[in-house]
Amino acid sequence: MAKELKNLTKRSENYSKWYNELVVKADLAEQADVRGCMTIKPYGYSIWEKIQRELDNRFKETGVQNAYFPLLIPKSFFGKEADHVEGFAKECAIVTHYRLKVDEEQGGIVVDPAARLEEEYIIRPTSETIIWNTYKNWIHSYRDLPILCNQWCNVMRWEMRTRLFLRTSEFLWQEGHTAHATREEAEERTRMMIKVYADFVEQFMAIPVIQGVKSETERFAGAIDTYTIEAMMQDGKALQSGTSHFLGQNFGKAFDVQFIDKDNTLQYAWATSWGVSTRLMGALIMTHSDDNGLVLPPNLAPIQVVIVPIYKTEDDLRAITEKVNPIIDELKKAGISVKFDDDDKRRPGFKFADYELRGVPVRLVLGSRDVENGTVEVMRRDTLEKETLPIDGICEAVGKLLTDIQDNCYAKAKTYMDQHIYECDNYNEFKQRIADGGFFLCPWDGTAETEAKIKEETQATIRCIPFGVSQENLGNDMVSGQPAKFRALIARAY
Amino acid sequence: MAKELKNLTKRSENYSKWYNELVVKADLAEQADVRGCMTIKPYGYSIWEKIQRELDNRFKETGVQNAYFPLLIPKSFFGKEADHVEGFAKECAIVTHYRLKVDEEQGGIVVDPAARLEEEYIIRPTSETIIWNTYKNWIHSYRDLPILCNQWCNVMRWEMRTRLFLRTSEFLWQEGHTAHATREEAEERTRMMIKVYADFVEQFMAIPVIQGVKSETERFAGAIDTYTIEAMMQDGKALQSGTSHFLGQNFGKAFDVQFIDKDNTLQYAWATSWGVSTRLMGALIMTHSDDNGLVLPPNLAPIQVVIVPIYKTEDDLRAITEKVNPIIDELKKAGISVKFDDDDKRRPGFKFADYELRGVPVRLVLGSRDVENGTVEVMRRDTLEKETLPIDGICEAVGKLLTDIQDNCYAKAKTYMDQHIYECDNYNEFKQRIADGGFFLCPWDGTAETEAKIKEETQATIRCIPFGVSQENLGNDMVSGQPAKFRALIARAY
Repeated sequence: MAKELKNLTKRSENYSKWYNELVVKADLAEQADVRGCMTIKPYGYSIWEKIQRELDNRFKETGVQNAYFPLLIPKSFFGKEADHVEGFAKECAIVTHYRLKVDEEQGGIVVDPAARLEEEYIIRPTSETIIWNTYKNWIHSYRDLPILCNQWCNVMRWEMRTRLFLRTSEFLWQEGHTAHATREEAEERTRMMIKVYADFVEQFMAIPVIQGVKSETERFAGAIDTYTIEAMMQDGKALQSGTSHFLGQNFGKAFDVQFIDKDNTLQYAWATSWGVSTRLMGALIMTHSDDNGLVLPPNLAPIQVVIVPIYKTEDDLRAITEKVNPIIDELKKAGISVKFDDDDKRRPGFKFADYELRGVPVRLVLGSRDVENGTVEVMRRDTLEKETLPIDGICEAVGKLLTDIQDNCYAKAKTYMDQHIYECDNYNEFKQRIADGGFFLCPWDGTAETEAKIKEETQATIRCIPFGVSQENLGNDMVSGQPAKFRALIARAY
Repeated sequence: MAKELKNLTKRSENYSKWYNELVVKADLAEQADVRGCMTIKPYGYSIWEKIQRELDNRFKETGVQNAYFPLLIPKSFFGKEADHVEGFAKECAIVTHYRLKVDEEQGGIVVDPAARLEEEYIIRPTSETIIWNTYKNWIHSYRDLPILCNQWCNVMRWEMRTRLFLRTSEFLWQEGHTAHATREEAEERTRMMIKVYADFVEQFMAIPVIQGVKSETERFAGAIDTYTIEAMMQDGKALQSGTSHFLGQNFGKAFDVQFIDKDNTLQYAWATSWGVSTRLMGALIMTHSDDNGLVLPPNLAPIQVVIVPIYKTEDDLRAITEKVNPIIDELKKAGISVKFDDDDKRRPGFKFADYELRGVPVRLVLGSRDVENGTVEVMRRDTLEKETLPIDGICEAVGKLLTDIQDNCYAKAKTYMDQHIYECDNYNEFKQRIADGGFFLCPWDGTAETEAKIKEETQATIRCIPFGVSQENLGNDMVSGQPAKFRALIARAY
């Protein structure tokens, strides 16, 4: 492992290669023997569980309930919403048969041609269609509204180029689908959920984000408006980390979901949907980690504190263990996850490298001299700084250190992002600088033509019209020279 | 709702119909517009979440970690384990294509024939094959063992006859898959997990079970031994509620998973797998519920206490609410989930019927006279008994009552089961009595022929060779008259 760690490509050499290697070496995930799909390994999955648990609590605080809808969607459902079919019913996994049989001639098993489905099923790429087909039976009166459902599930999109966590054919996510009696209420929910995402990602994952609204081109297929949170990776590229869609009455109309309102008239229900996925794992890795491996904000670390004893004899170990046991108890009582690694098959240097690679936020080392002196060596993973502290009061110190690391992870990422956001209204300058990464705030005329030209010539896209950025005195579009309608956030993206 | 409730079929009239109606009326689940699949509604899903949370904790206490493996399994993987393919690669959902396109002639969307997969994928009916194909890369030395992985996921089996929760084409479950260096360790894990299931189902879900080992005929396809827990429903039929399989080296050999043991020789890894599913929801419903609707053991109740105010004027309501607020706070502090239903659009009688239908364990009713007297009416759902108690100390009383209801649910089900287990060594008697349900302990010669005859003639099956039942002085098989090898538990089953 120490040797493997040395082999981790440096970010400055090849950021993309560094990422791919890190995901595998830190035991987070690996390519499966199924095209474009991944296996999420226990260490990676335990981080995902922490994301799930916290987000789920935050959803429920806003009145959301979980439910479960079918994996398979009848093909015809996709045809019902015109924009949606364009966006989703293309590259997808299609179930056409329901039985295998033994091949009488060749041996082996083959698809039974007699077991062809009358109508094919699509493995859900997203569930608006099947859910709104269900809501039709749940919604009759304004009293049935709002409906605030979420599901945690797997989805599938037949991606051509895949990368672990960032883009895989199958991925895990949550998708919230709400139905409302009024446009205002649905719009409010759309904005509420992008705020839930932004708060969660910033406060819990220590990843700063820019919130904003997507351009028409980048909108969810079938949405009136798509809100997004965009995070900046250490190579200055954007990672769309969560989206919340105001769907208007598009799905209400497509699936004939009508209700009697308070004035006794029939209305179509208003919809939102919103989701985040295992992509957040990619954002986490690429925002905080370094050339030694993962850096995990303590909130997300499966092991928050590792204790490594340094000893020669069994007696040494016994004396160390005696000192360590009360520390472990006290840390656990404080809700801190701790591992005492006294495995004698691995040398301390190997362990150090391994826990650095896995991003354990705090490392305590105790040798025999520490036992005599009543001290312990403390290392924090984010800065790799070491200090020697008295064992007395060590739990309180570790608690404070974990808070400090969490805060520092955010502060560091925020400083990086802020330093790489540029105002720019000169297209030549933009073209020169975009290769180095960063977010560019540029005047945009609001046309899809300009947007397409930027994308074609620079591989950068309009990430969003950011909230909290002045949309006045914009001047002219940097590409077309026409009066600008928005100040857009433009970047290359994952 | 009150009217709908009246329409709930009585168990004595038609147990099966009662079940089907109850699942839908209590808002647990419903048939989806996808063949054989269900939608799990929020109320039902919140019960499933409680099952998941508690089981997951119990798994983790035994060292198990969660992970995630792909949904799709290459068809060829199924051919690698001879018994397994027989059992699982028959009725299943088969992905053959990966793209849809617009039909130029007819309009609409069709499967693109150019996008046919070289090798078809099967939606996992169970994941031994894909997981052992992955373990091959994880296991090289005895130091890599044991591997103790579990995944919570959806699976699919193309069932012809489906019933909500009990048998659906898609269902949710957990599947644990462990790899071990020795036979002994794998066998120990197999037994450990059936005990985890039995303890969980009995202690947490208040459902008594019989543990035992399956006959060869009823074994998991690819297993050396299958352990089972069998619960008795109120119609005397058995419901297999969880299984744990000792898989020997079958999958180790099929997927060439070898490791260097301590003596430096190559060995095939030993395997177990074990699972429970949303079927447990069926067991829960059918064990405890009555003609008024669901009865939920408090551990599984999304709402444990409902408080209904009885009032005429707004002033009445205000006075009641003032009394109720501190009760709510105190109950919540004690970790008890509580709902105060002051919705003025529904009458009290309607609410009573609704919460009975949904199985809320404790109902508190407060009217104006109660406010004056400092009393509250308490109803327990399991027995429908009411009593009036002083508001002083009500939280402690409710806490005790919840414990008592949990215990009573188990005791009642245990008494029912014990009263319907019969020793029987006369086949004519068996044939007469089996129609009335119950578990029969019968001497069995151990042959598949006898087993098949019983099944054909009585629709009953050998559920297991139960643990803790004497296997001595068995006498002769009740069917063949040959010397018996086992005392088997025989019953009709779901």
